[in-house]
Amino acid sequence: MSFKGRDIVSIRDFNRDEVEHVLNVARLMEPLTMGGSKMLDGKVLSNIFFEPSTRTRLSFESAILKLGGNYISIPESQVSSVVKGENLVDTIRVLENYADVIVLRHFLEGAARLASEVAVVPVINAGSGGGEHPTQAMLDLYTMERELGTIDGLSVALVGDLKYGRTVHSLAYALSLYDTTLYLVSPKTLEMRREIVNDVSNEVTVVETNEVGDVIPNVDVLYVTRIQKERFPDQEEYEKIKGVYRISSNTLQNAKSNLIVLHPLPRVDEVTSDVDYTPHARYFKETWYGLVTRMALLCLVLGAIE
Amino acid sequence: MSFKGRDIVSIRDFNRDEVEHVLNVARLMEPLTMGGSKMLDGKVLSNIFFEPSTRTRLSFESAILKLGGNYISIPESQVSSVVKGENLVDTIRVLENYADVIVLRHFLEGAARLASEVAVVPVINAGSGGGEHPTQAMLDLYTMERELGTIDGLSVALVGDLKYGRTVHSLAYALSLYDTTLYLVSPKTLEMRREIVNDVSNEVTVVETNEVGDVIPNVDVLYVTRIQKERFPDQEEYEKIKGVYRISSNTLQNAKSNLIVLHPLPRVDEVTSDVDYTPHARYFKETWYGLVTRMALLCLVLGAIE
Amino acid sequence: MSFKGRDIVSIRDFNRDEVEHVLNVARLMEPLTMGGSKMLDGKVLSNIFFEPSTRTRLSFESAILKLGGNYISIPESQVSSVVKGENLVDTIRVLENYADVIVLRHFLEGAARLASEVAVVPVINAGSGGGEHPTQAMLDLYTMERELGTIDGLSVALVGDLKYGRTVHSLAYALSLYDTTLYLVSPKTLEMRREIVNDVSNEVTVVETNEVGDVIPNVDVLYVTRIQKERFPDQEEYEKIKGVYRISSNTLQNAKSNLIVLHPLPRVDEVTSDVDYTPHARYFKETWYGLVTRMALLCLVLGAIE
Repeated sequence: MSFKGRDIVSIRDFNRDEVEHVLNVARLMEPLTMGGSKMLDGKVLSNIFFEPSTRTRLSFESAILKLGGNYISIPESQVSSVVKGENLVDTIRVLENYADVIVLRHFLEGAARLASEVAVVPVINAGSGGGEHPTQAMLDLYTMERELGTIDGLSVALVGDLKYGRTVHSLAYALSLYDTTLYLVSPKTLEMRREIVNDVSNEVTVVETNEVGDVIPNVDVLYVTRIQKERFPDQEEYEKIKGVYRISSNTLQNAKSNLIVLHPLPRVDEVTSDVDYTPHARYFKETWYGLVTRMALLCLVLGAIE
Repeated sequence: MSFKGRDIVSIRDFNRDEVEHVLNVARLMEPLTMGGSKMLDGKVLSNIFFEPSTRTRLSFESAILKLGGNYISIPESQVSSVVKGENLVDTIRVLENYADVIVLRHFLEGAARLASEVAVVPVINAGSGGGEHPTQAMLDLYTMERELGTIDGLSVALVGDLKYGRTVHSLAYALSLYDTTLYLVSPKTLEMRREIVNDVSNEVTVVETNEVGDVIPNVDVLYVTRIQKERFPDQEEYEKIKGVYRISSNTLQNAKSNLIVLHPLPRVDEVTSDVDYTPHARYFKETWYGLVTRMALLCLVLGAIE
Repeated sequence: MSFKGRDIVSIRDFNRDEVEHVLNVARLMEPLTMGGSKMLDGKVLSNIFFEPSTRTRLSFESAILKLGGNYISIPESQVSSVVKGENLVDTIRVLENYADVIVLRHFLEGAARLASEVAVVPVINAGSGGGEHPTQAMLDLYTMERELGTIDGLSVALVGDLKYGRTVHSLAYALSLYDTTLYLVSPKTLEMRREIVNDVSNEVTVVETNEVGDVIPNVDVLYVTRIQKERFPDQEEYEKIKGVYRISSNTLQNAKSNLIVLHPLPRVDEVTSDVDYTPHARYFKETWYGLVTRMALLCLVLGAIE
């Protein structure tokens, strides 16, 4: 199996063997975060972010640096000056002459796919529209594997805004490659898109519910996402729902002892800070697993590891 | 001939031998774009851009990275906070303590010259006012030499806005160092500045015209620039002229088979996208030649190559 | 004495031996500014700037590059998108997974202290609120030591806005570790905070005055800071005071021959440009001493040097 030159556009382009390979390579990357590796010596990554996402940008930048490569970046604040009426295709055709791999964040769902078809160098989708965030899904899996020893057999609850949150879309597909049980926990108006529920239900057991409290005692992983005010025309409704879906150390009293709480960050108050001091919190460590997962993907698509 | 410590302010500071030397060194740089060179190990380039020009910034950043050096940058969005009433001279005197070479883009014509007189380290002009863009001119020459085998003997048409476009000003001077024929093709209101036409006419044959169609069959290089809406008080006039100067695969039907189309980018629609799929298009490859030309200049002014 | 893992939050956390150790290590760093050192190979510094301070940012970026490490940055223009309601503690907990050292600039006095308590990796305060700027104080000391051969025995005048200028606060404490005489020279309304005067007076001789002219003949170092228009409700008062505190080559006629003028930069016109050409000017060279002082601090807190 060679990933050299491969684009990372959608988690759905990967079968289980391939995902497992990424996670295995991620494991090899862990000691390299100490610095000094030259695996990607002289390689240049180009970030181009049409939406702000500083965390994801920094994660990729740190990943290439830890492997001895380097980066150039077009942050969202400069995109307008790049583009000046230029289409995405032209921008990509220029960037591929300056860089060995392109990391793209875009507000349109099809942008990463289009870029990958144009570019000779590999394109990594760092989030496109409401649809996909494949590297986030892989790092979520890696966190589960490393913290719980296995992914097969896990019960995972995705909690919060399942309609607009792209991380949960990619993650649902990713988990469906394993022998898992998925709890989809959201307010009525923010339920997972029907097509995704259908696709995933073909592979694994899916339970949809609006009651987070009922679910907590049954799951190994609580994956919490932010519920955004902007989604609610009625502010009273928003406040009520926000309160119900807020996870605190109190909410977790009936949880399994080894339950882990994940979150794509930034959190606001959907996970209260007292959870940080419980043995369940893994959302900060998750960012470190994200670093090594992205190191793995860079090594693979640039051909430094088979 | 040593370029060590030399400033790159104006193409007019270079004689033909020197330009040829830059192009020869650029050729040596091509294999180094694969990464891993340490020719500029530990050297730091500082970008300071008083105008947005993300493509040029990225090109220099990638160039220094590919040679094992690195960069620090003040993008246009941060210039105001640097400056805070500080004059350019002070800014340069600080930057030269942090960096081994300074790359400056400024909206005033004399800025790069002033900076070069102040700085102990070499200053590279990445575009100043309406006047100069010497590294662009060198990369344009390099593209011609690499794609057509020679510059002597070429007929080159500069098309579009020849009045305000700084790339065409520098390029006209650069081409006048070689045995070339220049066609200056523009609307009446956007003709090349008289002084440049006079200077260049002393060296090479210059033909001025408003008719792009008549010129195409005669030339080896079509160098197209953008005609900006803002230059026209009358929008109808703008639309008409834009239409006349637009290059499409249709326009190119009478072209020589090995004619190449260049463009400093970004293009909007002055070269239509169907041209991309003809054998004439070289404007994207030109950005790669730009990378190696800038690698050459950095090696030269930093003394890594004689 | 080991600095490994140590935070640099306040100059007041350091005793004289420790400050001297930093200055001694800075001396070792000087030849390394030529480039090529691998002392911090693979180490990643993260800047996070809640206030613009491009000079300080570039200084730290250049420092880590010169030692073979690298950086990721959140400039002030992107901070809002990082934060999105996230608290500083969460941001730090993410960054410490991407970087080996965090450099923080914040508009609140307690921010750097808070960050240092949260982070496992060392935190360096690059200016917090009106209070502290410890690395600036160390580089000021280093400049004095290198330019005048010693710090003990010096008479130093701090001139200008002593109330709001954080650099002079940290510097006053730093100088009080040595056998120095401090002249605090400011308009009535911009006098040094009483608590700092009291603290420092316990250690060294402090003379407070509003008359800069009287002080100049007596001092070895004139440390000038900017007086900001915004501090004065009455513009006429501002203009008058500005005129009185402006240092020119004329003002310096009665100075000792080896007096040095320092300034944290940017200057506007509180030091006129004719001073640049006198033997007293050291404010630009000071930025180079700043580079090596920050290289020293990075080596120390990352454990590359004991």
